[in-house]
Amino acid sequence: MHVHLRDGPMADLVTPTIRAGGVDTVFVMPNLVPPITTVAHCLQYRDKLRALAPDVTFLMSLYLHPSITPAVVAEAAAAGITGIKSYPAGVTTNSASGVVSYEPFYPVFQAMEQHDIVLNLHGELPPSAAKDGAPITVLNAEEAFLPTLLDLHRRFPRLRIILEHCTTAAALDAVRGCGPTVAATITAHHLHLIVDDWAGDPHSFCKPVAKLPSDRVALLKAAVGGEGRFFFGSDSAPHPVLAKRGGEDGRAKTAAGCFTQPFGVQLVVDAIRRGLEQGILGEGDVTKEALVEFLSGNGRKFYRVERPQGERTLRVERKGQTTPDFVRNGDGSVTVVPFWSGRDLPSLRWI
Amino acid sequence: MHVHLRDGPMADLVTPTIRAGGVDTVFVMPNLVPPITTVAHCLQYRDKLRALAPDVTFLMSLYLHPSITPAVVAEAAAAGITGIKSYPAGVTTNSASGVVSYEPFYPVFQAMEQHDIVLNLHGELPPSAAKDGAPITVLNAEEAFLPTLLDLHRRFPRLRIILEHCTTAAALDAVRGCGPTVAATITAHHLHLIVDDWAGDPHSFCKPVAKLPSDRVALLKAAVGGEGRFFFGSDSAPHPVLAKRGGEDGRAKTAAGCFTQPFGVQLVVDAIRRGLEQGILGEGDVTKEALVEFLSGNGRKFYRVERPQGERTLRVERKGQTTPDFVRNGDGSVTVVPFWSGRDLPSLRWI
Repeated sequence: MHVHLRDGPMADLVTPTIRAGGVDTVFVMPNLVPPITTVAHCLQYRDKLRALAPDVTFLMSLYLHPSITPAVVAEAAAAGITGIKSYPAGVTTNSASGVVSYEPFYPVFQAMEQHDIVLNLHGELPPSAAKDGAPITVLNAEEAFLPTLLDLHRRFPRLRIILEHCTTAAALDAVRGCGPTVAATITAHHLHLIVDDWAGDPHSFCKPVAKLPSDRVALLKAAVGGEGRFFFGSDSAPHPVLAKRGGEDGRAKTAAGCFTQPFGVQLVVDAIRRGLEQGILGEGDVTKEALVEFLSGNGRKFYRVERPQGERTLRVERKGQTTPDFVRNGDGSVTVVPFWSGRDLPSLRWI
Repeated sequence: MHVHLRDGPMADLVTPTIRAGGVDTVFVMPNLVPPITTVAHCLQYRDKLRALAPDVTFLMSLYLHPSITPAVVAEAAAAGITGIKSYPAGVTTNSASGVVSYEPFYPVFQAMEQHDIVLNLHGELPPSAAKDGAPITVLNAEEAFLPTLLDLHRRFPRLRIILEHCTTAAALDAVRGCGPTVAATITAHHLHLIVDDWAGDPHSFCKPVAKLPSDRVALLKAAVGGEGRFFFGSDSAPHPVLAKRGGEDGRAKTAAGCFTQPFGVQLVVDAIRRGLEQGILGEGDVTKEALVEFLSGNGRKFYRVERPQGERTLRVERKGQTTPDFVRNGDGSVTVVPFWSGRDLPSLRWI
């Protein structure tokens, strides 16, 4: 759940790698350029993705935007669109048209509640905001957003909300304190990373940024803890290598995002292996059943997606592959450095 | 004070830019490859630098290392070497041969006290260390080092110690709590940066990393506060653009360091201008006298360096230049992206 498949040649490259990452159902982000704000655009995009990966189920989303009205919500529901994604202004990639205040969207949220459309939150306050008079930074932006989450849940208790890509113990606890309509996704890379990992490594730099070791511990425990409200959402976010290395001349800012699509489940399994090795997790903490629910069951239940007919089983094999230095298309016009290139990972087999 | 002038073609490029940055006296870091651990190597390096910039006074340093003995300290003092720099293992550029425990160096520190050689501390605990059982990260590494500073000062009260490139309010306060033999440097870039600035910008990424807005406020106030124990040390640290953009293929880690040498004083003045604009500093907080002491007087006093005979005055002129996109040598074989390339800065004139 929660993947960026992009558009154009990048979509052609990354969409066919979904199943290699152990995934057959994805919730697709709408932050194209321009963002997906109409049902027609969304369905056209879904058709394109289906053609690229016919064996994958695509759950689609719209981008929360002033042009989204209750009527658009009704139309989206009728068309089988699953969710609406909210980006705080300026916080993440292609979110320049994102949300500053939620209040104008209350009628939209009411319609979403009524039509059972999921609200997917990028849960960070923008840098221009403040918390208790102190400026918002990349480090406290998620925690400072949590009162907003709780407020939205209180106002719209039947609205299904997902706090996407949680990075802090505080966010997990906030979600735990909500009713059953609120869930959260956890990425593969945040199960691996702390602040030191992205300090100086563009390929581990993403938004929200990875936080402290204690936050990583909390995420690992949530991933294996068997709580139905937490599930895997990779937030795989490919960028051309040039966008990660400062553009043609090396002076530009680094695009935020980790590309994990072809190795999603493998990276989760490997994070748990590392957690065991590092003594963060005990052998007794990890059960196959809870892991299967985290990877597959909980997300399907929350999104109310049937398991596909004749679904196959995924077998994980220890140390089966090394992530490549690059993932690139046939003519070399699109090159992406995957997260943790050159590392040994388990391999997967659909049986 | 505190500059990295490097060796080879990089030294040829950056050393002649010292005076353009409003500086006529520099304290030179010894972390070449291999590091400078002998008096002979140090003097040879000084001669080379003097040839590159005859109008600059070079204060030289050795790299704290097991080969530094009390005899080497005595030899260094006799040769006019000013200080010995200590790097915690693995914390910063070329510090693989750095210090893990200080205890073996107590005889060296005693000799330094006796011969009046300055101890220059890179004040961070290495990532392998822990504080109260919690792991060390780039965010708490400096604060976790402060008990070590206080312990060294208690054991060697006459040893002159500089806590280099302070980045936190806690570090400034620790230094304030010490006797007059302890001082601290503040860089130009840490007067500008917070964590959000280096998240996603390799050219603002340095070690110690810039911290929170409240830390930047404390640094700005210390720079203009007229306290004699704080002075400017740029920690200008040039890296070839490729080392900042992930190497030839874009996959490598980002080298830590901001190159500010040709714009040192300009960047300090601009940081104070920004601090005034942002309301962090009030007009009454900033006096020309305190600024002159921060930039010039305090460091000279601590290092016991005479003002040069016939010293000229530096005049700062508002909005006089734009930092270039690149600083490169004649044949283009060395290219560095300066800190804050493409920004308007005041200009300087020696009169």
